[in-house]
Amino acid sequence: MKTINLVLGIHNHQPIGNFDHVLEDAYRKSYKPFLDVLARFPKIKISQHYTGYLLEWLKKNHPEIFTQLKSLVKSGQVQMMTGGFYEPILAVIPDKDKLGQIQKLNEYIKKHFRTVPTGMWLAERVWEQHIVKPIAKSGVRWVTIDDTHFKYVGLKDENLLGYYVTEEQGWMLNVFPISKTMRYTIPFQPVAKTIEYLRSIATEDGSRIAIYADDGEKFGVWPHTYKHVYEDGWLTDFLKALEDNSDWINIVHFSEVMAKVKPIGRVYLQNASYAEMLQWALPEELFRKYEEFEKKLKAADLFENYEEFVRGGYWRNFLAKYPEVNNIHKKMIRLSERAHAVKHRSAAVERALDSVWAAQCNDPYWHGVFGGVYLPNLRYPVYKSLIQAETILDKIEHKPKLTVTPEDFDMDGSNEVLVETNTLDAYFMPEVGAAMFELDYKPIPFNFLDILSRRPEGYHEKLRRASEKSAQAGEVLSIHDIVTSKEAGLEKLLNYDWYRRASFIDHFIGNSTPEEFAAAKYKELGDFVDKPYLKKISHKNGKAAIQFTRDGTLKDGINTPVRVTKTFEFKESTGTILCAYKVQNLGPSPVGVDFGVEFNFGLMAGDAHDRYYTINNAKPADPRLKSAGTTEAVTSVSLSDEWQGLQATVEVDRPLTLWRFPIETVSLSEAGFERVYQSSVVFLHSRVQLEKEFDVEFKLTLSKIR
Amino acid sequence: MKTINLVLGIHNHQPIGNFDHVLEDAYRKSYKPFLDVLARFPKIKISQHYTGYLLEWLKKNHPEIFTQLKSLVKSGQVQMMTGGFYEPILAVIPDKDKLGQIQKLNEYIKKHFRTVPTGMWLAERVWEQHIVKPIAKSGVRWVTIDDTHFKYVGLKDENLLGYYVTEEQGWMLNVFPISKTMRYTIPFQPVAKTIEYLRSIATEDGSRIAIYADDGEKFGVWPHTYKHVYEDGWLTDFLKALEDNSDWINIVHFSEVMAKVKPIGRVYLQNASYAEMLQWALPEELFRKYEEFEKKLKAADLFENYEEFVRGGYWRNFLAKYPEVNNIHKKMIRLSERAHAVKHRSAAVERALDSVWAAQCNDPYWHGVFGGVYLPNLRYPVYKSLIQAETILDKIEHKPKLTVTPEDFDMDGSNEVLVETNTLDAYFMPEVGAAMFELDYKPIPFNFLDILSRRPEGYHEKLRRASEKSAQAGEVLSIHDIVTSKEAGLEKLLNYDWYRRASFIDHFIGNSTPEEFAAAKYKELGDFVDKPYLKKISHKNGKAAIQFTRDGTLKDGINTPVRVTKTFEFKESTGTILCAYKVQNLGPSPVGVDFGVEFNFGLMAGDAHDRYYTINNAKPADPRLKSAGTTEAVTSVSLSDEWQGLQATVEVDRPLTLWRFPIETVSLSEAGFERVYQSSVVFLHSRVQLEKEFDVEFKLTLSKIR
Repeated sequence: MKTINLVLGIHNHQPIGNFDHVLEDAYRKSYKPFLDVLARFPKIKISQHYTGYLLEWLKKNHPEIFTQLKSLVKSGQVQMMTGGFYEPILAVIPDKDKLGQIQKLNEYIKKHFRTVPTGMWLAERVWEQHIVKPIAKSGVRWVTIDDTHFKYVGLKDENLLGYYVTEEQGWMLNVFPISKTMRYTIPFQPVAKTIEYLRSIATEDGSRIAIYADDGEKFGVWPHTYKHVYEDGWLTDFLKALEDNSDWINIVHFSEVMAKVKPIGRVYLQNASYAEMLQWALPEELFRKYEEFEKKLKAADLFENYEEFVRGGYWRNFLAKYPEVNNIHKKMIRLSERAHAVKHRSAAVERALDSVWAAQCNDPYWHGVFGGVYLPNLRYPVYKSLIQAETILDKIEHKPKLTVTPEDFDMDGSNEVLVETNTLDAYFMPEVGAAMFELDYKPIPFNFLDILSRRPEGYHEKLRRASEKSAQAGEVLSIHDIVTSKEAGLEKLLNYDWYRRASFIDHFIGNSTPEEFAAAKYKELGDFVDKPYLKKISHKNGKAAIQFTRDGTLKDGINTPVRVTKTFEFKESTGTILCAYKVQNLGPSPVGVDFGVEFNFGLMAGDAHDRYYTINNAKPADPRLKSAGTTEAVTSVSLSDEWQGLQATVEVDRPLTLWRFPIETVSLSEAGFERVYQSSVVFLHSRVQLEKEFDVEFKLTLSKIR
Repeated sequence: MKTINLVLGIHNHQPIGNFDHVLEDAYRKSYKPFLDVLARFPKIKISQHYTGYLLEWLKKNHPEIFTQLKSLVKSGQVQMMTGGFYEPILAVIPDKDKLGQIQKLNEYIKKHFRTVPTGMWLAERVWEQHIVKPIAKSGVRWVTIDDTHFKYVGLKDENLLGYYVTEEQGWMLNVFPISKTMRYTIPFQPVAKTIEYLRSIATEDGSRIAIYADDGEKFGVWPHTYKHVYEDGWLTDFLKALEDNSDWINIVHFSEVMAKVKPIGRVYLQNASYAEMLQWALPEELFRKYEEFEKKLKAADLFENYEEFVRGGYWRNFLAKYPEVNNIHKKMIRLSERAHAVKHRSAAVERALDSVWAAQCNDPYWHGVFGGVYLPNLRYPVYKSLIQAETILDKIEHKPKLTVTPEDFDMDGSNEVLVETNTLDAYFMPEVGAAMFELDYKPIPFNFLDILSRRPEGYHEKLRRASEKSAQAGEVLSIHDIVTSKEAGLEKLLNYDWYRRASFIDHFIGNSTPEEFAAAKYKELGDFVDKPYLKKISHKNGKAAIQFTRDGTLKDGINTPVRVTKTFEFKESTGTILCAYKVQNLGPSPVGVDFGVEFNFGLMAGDAHDRYYTINNAKPADPRLKSAGTTEAVTSVSLSDEWQGLQATVEVDRPLTLWRFPIETVSLSEAGFERVYQSSVVFLHSRVQLEKEFDVEFKLTLSKIR
């Protein structure tokens, strides 16, 4: 009789700091009912992976699932899979952390489930050959990854009914190619489809292995799946069908099948993830070009047969594509190094390191078609965790209360200037407008500049086309043009920032409306916004001054030469930053200019009642952070966040005109296009008749409000 | 005025153990005249890379070039580039060796040229992002790689007129994309072409960098180039043209341009090499499919515009494609680990480690269209170096004079059996016919089983087509079918081995001629050649016995069950291996079989007067190792190599029939298709009426003959 080995794996993940209600929902709709159904079919062996944050949450909120899992493990029905504790992209974290994160989950599993995992789930299946070494070092013997990876090195479906050995510097690891067919049939197709497929690949010698592993959330959390999988009984039917056919379907654990069946051969795998991910990693322009190519290949009937030669980008280019991802990554790398550099491994160091690991959680490090780095609620816990680690390390290292470090923080080949006090971090980029691009408040760990600028995305075109089409009455939308949107008119928000949204950005604006300015479609007369400034640092007696200067030119018809000097002052232990501006006309004749300074504050919710503006000590008519408006003669603007209990205030030594407006990005979510609040822009400016010099002084204060 | 920065780099390499006459030729035709011409143009700054073996050879044979180079370095005209000392593929050697090899060349350069290199040449430009860390750790600040690498992550020609920063775990490195245009114009096109190109990319702000770096052998060693570059004066003209245009072409060193021009940005690069290399790394079938795809894309006018999405394989798959490459690689990895594991770092350990490093020389680790792993003269010095390292380590570790280790040497998921004495290494693969796949003789370091089996190569089709066409009289060959061949009739050698050529391979052959057997097109009745054997190891009192047993079946019409048992005996300090065969008929009735054992000996030259057969103590009519023939009643066969002074002898305790023939591969070289002698097959067999049992005993002796 023809038989087949079947191995099953389920991966359950929640990003750190995710909302309780989201986890509760996933627990109720998926994690719990899945195990309940499974327990009724004791012959069905399955490997289960839960990421660390989810395990900790479950332990706290639903300890009963631990009991249930433990008993399933004890009976041998379930084997636990390991992975990086906080589900990091292994390839881009330091080697020590790669090993440490896996060991942490190993130990957690050992402690709570009294079992030692032999295999692991690879986050987002982002493979680079060099990760084999830390994985194998951790004791892991096997890993599941997409069959895509194997196809890129020349293997075909018929070569993928088994596992391979791979190696790095003499460290070996077994790699199981996940069947794309079953990822599509389970649980979306009728049960019979999967059984048919298994039948079609069964052989007389029974040496083949059908490999399934996928996200647990597809069983209940994904739209419509709860009804399908549980209420309509798909899962029960599926497991029953497997049991009914157990004479020819041998359901075995990954760990068992390796003892039974030899590996097919040796393989080395190209950097890869699933094909879609590789497209998303491409620069926007190429993202569209890739789609175009795929379309043309299909039209020329060349795609299906030659797909293995068609590739997108490289995962790590998310670090080049989004400076905001790079910012998180480089801060993480910097803190990981600091934590590992501490000689005496105290509990505090371990806590710091664990905070860094938590901040390696992959979710905000990339963007596909859903959320990712676009979502403030994914970025926020990561920065929080990083700033917490930093605060711990500051203490351990007895770091001076105020330091000013020129350092290539973002690794672009030019030094940034990092000001760090025991109250705040303020990071400047002298080469790019000498703007402040990170502003961390330590008493309540929060980065006020954790915001995403608006930039084109490959999928924006669809939104634009859909709106054009629907504007043309009578035209029928083709299937490709049907776009789901959470609200109408989102295409109007498709404005793109030509500079990175930050603070202390120096503008000379031409005749422009606030709306044009907000849309980044105004007229910039200066060349200061994103151009290099010279820096001069002085630091003594607990005080630091940083002077940034640029000699630029105004596009005012006569190319007036202008010097902007901004001098920041920092003191130990205060949340206050002073900045004195000197704008000098270096030309022979006076000019009229509209000079102003742009601030950004990303407070995570533009529409929440507990987050609001105060202008000149009074709430404006619409105080919401996503509100837009113009106010004359402003000397003080505050943005308050009662949820976190903190506040940022900009004060200025002379009345200026305030333009305020939100930065909202348009990105895709599971429910279609959505607007996401990123930041509130505070632009304080003034019409100035520039004879020789114009001076203005700003004071930016961060404080607690509880 | 529009200006452009121009950086120039030259890479000179010779594999370890290359023939003196080849190096002498390269010195005379390229290395020396290049510097002579260069010295006449003191304004032309250029970076020069010489790999370690070449430097050592030059120092010994032409010390004057060191003096010349030192003076060019002193004057600032030449900067020395570093790299892995023996030009290894960095990505596939242990991390410690990555760093160590670069440091070794750094130190060599420092000692002999009194300068510290800041940049390096990357062997075969095989890039994996993780190598940034060891490179940066070694102090290297920049590296040159193909522009191809950058295109794969979405950058275009106009983005490649400058350099980028890349990063790994916080370690930074500047990467310079080598201009493909200039790789094609220099030195192959008229000088004006390059000047025109430079003119076309020059800009008013002069911030662009034109980046050239390529093999030095293209200047004189490549066919016809000596005349072109020196006799016809191309190089003089070129350097003169650069000097004449020095008002707008700023020739600067890589190290200088980094101080002058900022990097364009941050980049992460996909695993890559030049595009051709990635095609060569594909499995043979895909190699051809890739060509087909490229052709179809060109026909559909899709190639040029979308080339960046079309990719071949992954360099490391040479390790999966050629078991012989894997064999070298895994032996290297094993010895590197052993060397690093020695606690006390004596001079002997350093010597062992250096031998391992020498054996990391990339040339025999891959095959493109030229030589590579197909050439015994490239593999030989690598094995020699490895066996030398092993001998040193054996002493340091006080290794027992005889060990038998079941270990997954080739990392395919099954254990091999490694027998190691102080005289020889004999490695067996129980899963594959229990054949011996490596046989190292330690007194004169040499692997008798360093041979390449015959397998299909993507380019063989061309040879076959060409011969078919030329057979059809009157037909005109199209340009694609014109094939250069070093001799006629090579297509007749295109026989493919269905098993890896090794020793102690157990055959039951049907009615077949010696020619059919030699062509691997005979009838194999047994299932022993490449199938698993059980193993039993016993080892005591300085003696070891390994018994391999397999119960197989003959395809003799009645499926006679047969058991083959071969028992090897090893003693300390002798070069002799005994193997007692027992062939048992497990069926009810006697059968007539033709049973025999195949041996392979790769002695590097099939046609040399100093390498020959001795059969039953007499030289045959044609004693050359590439000769073929049949001899009856043979009890002793020797293969002698007077060049090395060693000999292998097979003796048998009863007269058998000898079939001997060479294994010759057909591969491409610069001069077209060529046959390469790999091995001499000694097949000793006999017609046997198998009642119950047939016994035969072999003695294989390795010895010095001087």
